[in-house]
Amino acid sequence: MTIYDLLIIGGGPAGLAAAIYGGRGKLKTAVIEKGMPGGQAATTNELENYPGFGKGFTGPDIMQKWLAQAQAFDAEILYDDVLEYRLKGDIKEVKGMTGTVYQAKSIILANGSEPRILGIPGEKEFRGRGVSYCATCDAAFFKDLKVTVIGNGDTAIDEAQYLTKFAQEVTIIVRRPYKQLRANKRSVESAYANPKIKWVWESVPVEVKGDQVVTSLLVQNTATGEISEITCDGVFFFVGMLPRTELFVDQLDHNEQNYIITDEKMATNIDGVFAAGDLREKYLRQVITAANDGAIAAYAAEKYLAQKEENSVK
Amino acid sequence: MTIYDLLIIGGGPAGLAAAIYGGRGKLKTAVIEKGMPGGQAATTNELENYPGFGKGFTGPDIMQKWLAQAQAFDAEILYDDVLEYRLKGDIKEVKGMTGTVYQAKSIILANGSEPRILGIPGEKEFRGRGVSYCATCDAAFFKDLKVTVIGNGDTAIDEAQYLTKFAQEVTIIVRRPYKQLRANKRSVESAYANPKIKWVWESVPVEVKGDQVVTSLLVQNTATGEISEITCDGVFFFVGMLPRTELFVDQLDHNEQNYIITDEKMATNIDGVFAAGDLREKYLRQVITAANDGAIAAYAAEKYLAQKEENSVK
Repeated sequence: MTIYDLLIIGGGPAGLAAAIYGGRGKLKTAVIEKGMPGGQAATTNELENYPGFGKGFTGPDIMQKWLAQAQAFDAEILYDDVLEYRLKGDIKEVKGMTGTVYQAKSIILANGSEPRILGIPGEKEFRGRGVSYCATCDAAFFKDLKVTVIGNGDTAIDEAQYLTKFAQEVTIIVRRPYKQLRANKRSVESAYANPKIKWVWESVPVEVKGDQVVTSLLVQNTATGEISEITCDGVFFFVGMLPRTELFVDQLDHNEQNYIITDEKMATNIDGVFAAGDLREKYLRQVITAANDGAIAAYAAEKYLAQKEENSVK
Repeated sequence: MTIYDLLIIGGGPAGLAAAIYGGRGKLKTAVIEKGMPGGQAATTNELENYPGFGKGFTGPDIMQKWLAQAQAFDAEILYDDVLEYRLKGDIKEVKGMTGTVYQAKSIILANGSEPRILGIPGEKEFRGRGVSYCATCDAAFFKDLKVTVIGNGDTAIDEAQYLTKFAQEVTIIVRRPYKQLRANKRSVESAYANPKIKWVWESVPVEVKGDQVVTSLLVQNTATGEISEITCDGVFFFVGMLPRTELFVDQLDHNEQNYIITDEKMATNIDGVFAAGDLREKYLRQVITAANDGAIAAYAAEKYLAQKEENSVK
């Protein structure tokens, strides 16, 4: 059985950056990815703020380049979904959905995060039939139709803008009072100037309604308590993220939201176990910061292994 | 007089990433650069480990893209060399070599670091006449000639390899004992296999000799004390870096080596003053980690300014 020097769980920006550094550092490196490499970045249309590309490069384009770069340094990509984690000890073991057990001397957890589910009636029922968490994935299905967007943050505003490329009308449901948005100014001003965007302030969604597909959204004004019905063909939720750490969080130091706590080397509380990217407790979650984490974690893993080797010789 | 929202000192990877984020966040952003934008990265031949490009892209190529990206978001590039820093107060002021005073509501120090000078006889005298600190800049001048390389680290080994593309023979002077290198394995193994590379172990350089240009290097064996003369046409020093912080380090928390101490938002001990890139106390100094710092610092500066504005309205 192969014992990898470095096993990376998750092939998003953090995982692929770690693979580039691990492979280049001549560690026997593998990335386990359960779906399409690139993580959330691969479902993001424009990545215009990642230093080095600029306008016109899509998330999938860029992630394909990273994947090729990692493979050029001999990092393997293994397709599996890891269900069990044994992180303690000199040899770390994880078991995939396929039944395969993978062993490694060091491991980087780069599982990322996923959208938070609001849990209102109809949300689950109509997922994939009008309810979506990814504009890039689904916007094209709403050509000339009406959609609502739930959320106040950068993602909500940016994705609403993107949706106007397809939809006839995009109504943003905002919990905060009139024009009290937290998103960055440039996005907000640009959204205000967009004639396809309508705003419903100080309101929360209470139910997604439909028959075969979504037909409307009920929203409640939090000041007056009044409920109104907005006719729409789709509802996009952008209400935050959750770290994908539930399968190993009990083994590691973590915060209240189950984000993993690391030091500046991306080391967790277990020797040889590192965490990188969106699942970490950190200030800013972006492609560039995930890549930073991955590079550091792989570098630190290499130093950890070199140190262990030196010690075993003595 | 223009008061910038965000003034960035230094146009290397950290500064340009900060400019991309600052400009995109609609802050009135300027970068003050004293020479060619791109910093050390712009003098590095291959940047094959920066996620997204891979082989075949040079440092200058990539830095040109970042510069264009920053400018596309309306960040200004100002050419000047900052000699005075007033970091305290609501309006930060810096004064350039040209006599111009620049004002800003927030500032990111991204001045980078520079090569350490060893200070042996002949080093200064023959700088630019055989003594170099940058293989990418100067290697081409040593076509079919003999050069020596001083250093034990990744940079020394990687640059020695690069020099063999031009020079006839590259002799590496290593302070550490036989084959006890600290550099990464891949680089080291590859250097051992390179027939153009010779090694002088457990030795230190003591004098650069020459007439119009370098003609030899004197080295001393640290075990025996014996001094020998190596005929060569060039001497490349790769013996570490120093942060460019001397003009403001007294105003800021710093470590013993004068690297600036920040929190995870890249904030220094002075409100509205951030530090990003190689001049920070940090674990790993790479283009990707500098860019990470710059993005975070600009994001944090935007939040700092928004918070101040909110406070002033109340």
